[in-house]
Amino acid sequence: MNPSGNVFVLSAPSGTGKSTLARRLVQELPGLDFSVSYTTRKARPGEVHGRDYSFVDDATFDAMVAQDGFLEWVRVYDRRYGTGRAWVQEHLATGRDILLDIETQGAGRVHRAMPGAVMIFLLPPSSGELSARLRGRGDESEEQVRIRLEYAKHELAQWEGYDFLVVNDNVEQAYRRLAAIIIATRCRRERMGTAAQQILDSF
Amino acid sequence: MNPSGNVFVLSAPSGTGKSTLARRLVQELPGLDFSVSYTTRKARPGEVHGRDYSFVDDATFDAMVAQDGFLEWVRVYDRRYGTGRAWVQEHLATGRDILLDIETQGAGRVHRAMPGAVMIFLLPPSSGELSARLRGRGDESEEQVRIRLEYAKHELAQWEGYDFLVVNDNVEQAYRRLAAIIIATRCRRERMGTAAQQILDSF
Repeated sequence: MNPSGNVFVLSAPSGTGKSTLARRLVQELPGLDFSVSYTTRKARPGEVHGRDYSFVDDATFDAMVAQDGFLEWVRVYDRRYGTGRAWVQEHLATGRDILLDIETQGAGRVHRAMPGAVMIFLLPPSSGELSARLRGRGDESEEQVRIRLEYAKHELAQWEGYDFLVVNDNVEQAYRRLAAIIIATRCRRERMGTAAQQILDSF
Repeated sequence: MNPSGNVFVLSAPSGTGKSTLARRLVQELPGLDFSVSYTTRKARPGEVHGRDYSFVDDATFDAMVAQDGFLEWVRVYDRRYGTGRAWVQEHLATGRDILLDIETQGAGRVHRAMPGAVMIFLLPPSSGELSARLRGRGDESEEQVRIRLEYAKHELAQWEGYDFLVVNDNVEQAYRRLAAIIIATRCRRERMGTAAQQILDSF
């Protein structure tokens, strides 16, 4: 029915709960698929190659950059993250939707490349809440937590570049809101016009 | 948090299931209230004055028209329907959202008066399905059904004036989509900017 799928960009400061929510959206909403980013960082315990990220070494990442293989890529601290161009383009052509889980720098580049992308920003309830969550994760030093909070502030300052803002103060409510944004987008006139015209033509 | 509530306009051809869905939205979504229209038509069995409509006589309706008491009003067949101006304005000022259940003529006038209104059109799955539902209701003559179907076609031709199109082929799915449109609208940057700025300021 739709010529091309929708692109949803989900950004959030590290520790806001974005990955868990993104995974659940893709599991529970038919027709929505996760764009798996490439990264040069090491997998954390429980993370699966090809599901959470495509974990690649620096040489592989360099080669993809040289071949213009990324829709966007960024450096965060000493790591690089990128969205594979070919996968996104081929996927959208099938009419299915894509969820891109990327941080603010990359999100801005995707928005410029695809102005129709629906931009969603997930926010922590407060600075205190985010620092408690980052420390609770227990896999980072106090210095790393401090750097993440600084970076979170920098990212949060980008909220005006997003279409939708969702505060993750309650994970069920945040999930419901994110799902609503995706379902509502699919009901937009631009997406449903063909169906409406067919119904009208049946009269 | 929000200076003023959102206005949602829901239109649908008669028999599409709009009233049932509208009532459920208002029951299940906190912060959303139903604008009860005025009408000069008689109450159907089960309809309650002040809940489904304010049922008024022609003289009362005339007096309200003369006092500019309607945001919009229309004549449909030999009946008139109108949205009370004072109620809408006072309600929005409290920050709560309003659901307006009105047909396409009135919807267009509300949209011109309030360009920020979110316009939602509920469609029957097909002509055959709608005529079956209208006949199943059993309170109208074959001639009345024929007139309703003609008018439905006229209304459906207005779909391009709406932001969102929802087909009521499955009442649960239609409900979920309508609720999603309302929830997503509340997450828009224009509505959530103040909250986002407060979170940023906590860093």
